[in-house]
Amino acid sequence: MTALQIGATIGILGGGQLGRMLSQAAARLGFDVHIYCPEADCPAARVSARHMAADYDDAGALARFAEACDVITYEFENVPVATIEVLQAQGALVRPGATSLNVSQDRVDEKSFLNACGIETAKFAAIGETGDIAPALDTLGGAGILKTRRDGYDGKGQVRVVTGDDFKAAHRALANAPTILEQLVAFEREISVVVARDAGGETLCFDIPKNTHVNGILRRSEVPSGVSGEVEARACAAGVTLIDALDHVGVLALEFFVLADGQLLANEFAPRVHNSGHWTPEACQSCQFEQHIRAIAGWPLAPVTRFFDVEMINLLGEEALPPALDLSGRDQLTLYGKRSALPGRKMGHVVRRLGPAQDGAE
Amino acid sequence: MTALQIGATIGILGGGQLGRMLSQAAARLGFDVHIYCPEADCPAARVSARHMAADYDDAGALARFAEACDVITYEFENVPVATIEVLQAQGALVRPGATSLNVSQDRVDEKSFLNACGIETAKFAAIGETGDIAPALDTLGGAGILKTRRDGYDGKGQVRVVTGDDFKAAHRALANAPTILEQLVAFEREISVVVARDAGGETLCFDIPKNTHVNGILRRSEVPSGVSGEVEARACAAGVTLIDALDHVGVLALEFFVLADGQLLANEFAPRVHNSGHWTPEACQSCQFEQHIRAIAGWPLAPVTRFFDVEMINLLGEEALPPALDLSGRDQLTLYGKRSALPGRKMGHVVRRLGPAQDGAE
Repeated sequence: MTALQIGATIGILGGGQLGRMLSQAAARLGFDVHIYCPEADCPAARVSARHMAADYDDAGALARFAEACDVITYEFENVPVATIEVLQAQGALVRPGATSLNVSQDRVDEKSFLNACGIETAKFAAIGETGDIAPALDTLGGAGILKTRRDGYDGKGQVRVVTGDDFKAAHRALANAPTILEQLVAFEREISVVVARDAGGETLCFDIPKNTHVNGILRRSEVPSGVSGEVEARACAAGVTLIDALDHVGVLALEFFVLADGQLLANEFAPRVHNSGHWTPEACQSCQFEQHIRAIAGWPLAPVTRFFDVEMINLLGEEALPPALDLSGRDQLTLYGKRSALPGRKMGHVVRRLGPAQDGAE
Repeated sequence: MTALQIGATIGILGGGQLGRMLSQAAARLGFDVHIYCPEADCPAARVSARHMAADYDDAGALARFAEACDVITYEFENVPVATIEVLQAQGALVRPGATSLNVSQDRVDEKSFLNACGIETAKFAAIGETGDIAPALDTLGGAGILKTRRDGYDGKGQVRVVTGDDFKAAHRALANAPTILEQLVAFEREISVVVARDAGGETLCFDIPKNTHVNGILRRSEVPSGVSGEVEARACAAGVTLIDALDHVGVLALEFFVLADGQLLANEFAPRVHNSGHWTPEACQSCQFEQHIRAIAGWPLAPVTRFFDVEMINLLGEEALPPALDLSGRDQLTLYGKRSALPGRKMGHVVRRLGPAQDGAE
C-alpha cells in the first residue's frame, strides 16, 4: 500500500455536495483536488483547485483528467461504469473501482449481491414487462413497491402497488423502464452503517445512526440509534462483509430496515460517503470524508471515536435560506453552495450536539 | 447590520494558510470566495472559487476585484493600507477596515495605541538613527530587543542588544531601518486572546491558550492556559477594549506576556485570525475562521463553547512530510498545501484532544 504524496492530485467524478465536502477534507490533508463534472458552476468545483467541465463520455477529456490525477474517485453512484473503464484504460488508479458502481447501479444486481453475501433483504422480483407485476405481487403478499432498477434517488422513480391496482398505469409512471418489485416491509426504524476500508483491507465502522425519511428523502439522522448493541454489531458485520466482498477501497454506506424483533433487512447501499454520515465531522475524531480520502490515498484510516450524541437535519429547498434558516450558529451549519433552492432539494444540513457521547464512544 | 446573502462572494486579500482556512469556513456557510494574491499557485486559491493573481498596487485589478466581491477582508497584516483605500474608493465594503491594518503595521504605533487604550505593554522607545539606541537602552534597564518597526514576523527582523554592544552592527543587521527598542521582559509564560466582533459591535472571546515560541516561531498552543481565571478575565477585557477601540469587525488576536505576579504586558496584536487559535475547529462549537466570516458577512457570532482540552502543534518545514509526519490520524492533521518545505516554514499543524474541557466550557 503506497501512500499518496502530500501535494498529489485527487480527482473526483461528480461536482455535488459530497464532492464538495470530500474536496475540503482532501485539501486539509494537503492534497489538490480536480473535479470532473459537466456542470460549469458546480458546488465542488468552487472549493477545488481545478475543474474539468466535460461529459462523462468525453474520451479526450477523460484522458486528460486521468493524466492530471494521481488517484480518482467518484462522489455519486450514477457515474457510468464505462467512464471508469476509460479512465482505467488510460492507466488511472480509480478507487473504489468499477465493481461497487456496477453492482449498486441496478437494484436487482444490488439485492442479489447482498443476498449472495449472506445479507438479508426484503423479498423482491425483477420485472421485465407489466404482465410480470401481478404474479410477482402474489408471491410478495399482495403489496409492494415498484422501483426503476436504475437511476432512482431521494424517493424518485418508485410507486406503491397492491393487488388490484392498475399496473399499466403504475409501470407507465416509471416510463415502462425495467423495474424491481420489492416487498413492503413493516419496519420499526431505519438505520445505516457507514464503513471505511483502506487499501490494505482494514475496515472501520462509524457509530450507527437512526434515519428518518420523509417522502423518500432523508430528513434526520440521530446517534445513537436507539437499537441494541447486538443489532448494531450485526449491522456493522454486514457492512464489513459487503465492503470486503466488493473489494471496495473508500467509504460506503449500507441502509437497513430494523423490524420489531430486531431482524435487519438491508435496503440498499451507496458506494460512497453518505448523507446519513454528515454528522461525523462534528461528532467524531475523523469524519467520513477524511476516511474516504485517506483510504483512496493509500493512507491508514483514522480513529472514528465519537465524542457527542448528535442529530443531523437536512435543509431542503428554502429551509436553507433566510428567514427560515437559523443564522445563530447554535447548530453547526453546512451549506452546499447550490444556486437554486428547488423544493425538496438538499441545500445543506445542520448538526446539533446533544451532549457527550453516552455510548459507542471510547 | 445587513446580513450577506447566501451565495454572495467574499474577497480575501492574501493567499496563505489563513486565507485557505477562512475560505473553507466561508464555503461551509454557503459563500463563494475570491482570493486576491500575486502568487499564481497560492494555498488559498486552490480551495476557492476564484483567484485574481495581481499585485497589491494594481489599480485595475483592484477595481475588478471590488466589483466582483460583496465584502472584502484580509488574511495578513502587511497588505498595504493604500490597497484598502483603493478598494474603498471603488465602493467596496472592507472588513475589518484600514485602521486595524494601519495601527498594527508599525510596532511603535501599535504599542502607542495599546497604551492609549489603557493596555499596558513593555516599555519601548522609537529609534530613528543608531545614535538613539544607547540612551534609550539606559532608560530600559540596559537590555532590550531591537525590532524593525514594520514587516517583521515569526521572529524575523529583530536582534537582542545590551549596553556595550556594537549598536552599529545591530542596526545594520536590520538594514538600518526605523526600529523600536523594547524592554526585555522576564515573563513566566505567553498567552493570547482571540476575540471576535460582529458588525453590530457584539464581542466574544475564545478560551485563552498558553503559547510556546521557539526561535520566534509559535511552536505550541495549549488550552487551558494554566493561568488563573482572574488573569484570563483581564486578558479578555483588554482584547475587547482593543477591538472596540479599533472598531474592528472580524477576529483579532492580542498576545501577552504574563509576569510572575500575574501582571499582563501586551506584546502585539494581529488584526486577523491567528495561529494561536488553530485549535478552535477541533475544540469549539464554532471556530475562529467561521467567526471571522460571520462577522464580516454581517451575521451574528456563533457560540465559542469549548468542548475539549487541546494542544495545537505547528509542523515546520519537513515535519510536515513523511517520514516525520504521523499519518495515523490520532491527532487531527491540517496541511496548508505549500509547495516547498523550507526550514522553519509553517506547513501545517496538528491538534490533539486531551480530554473533555476541564474549565472554561459551558
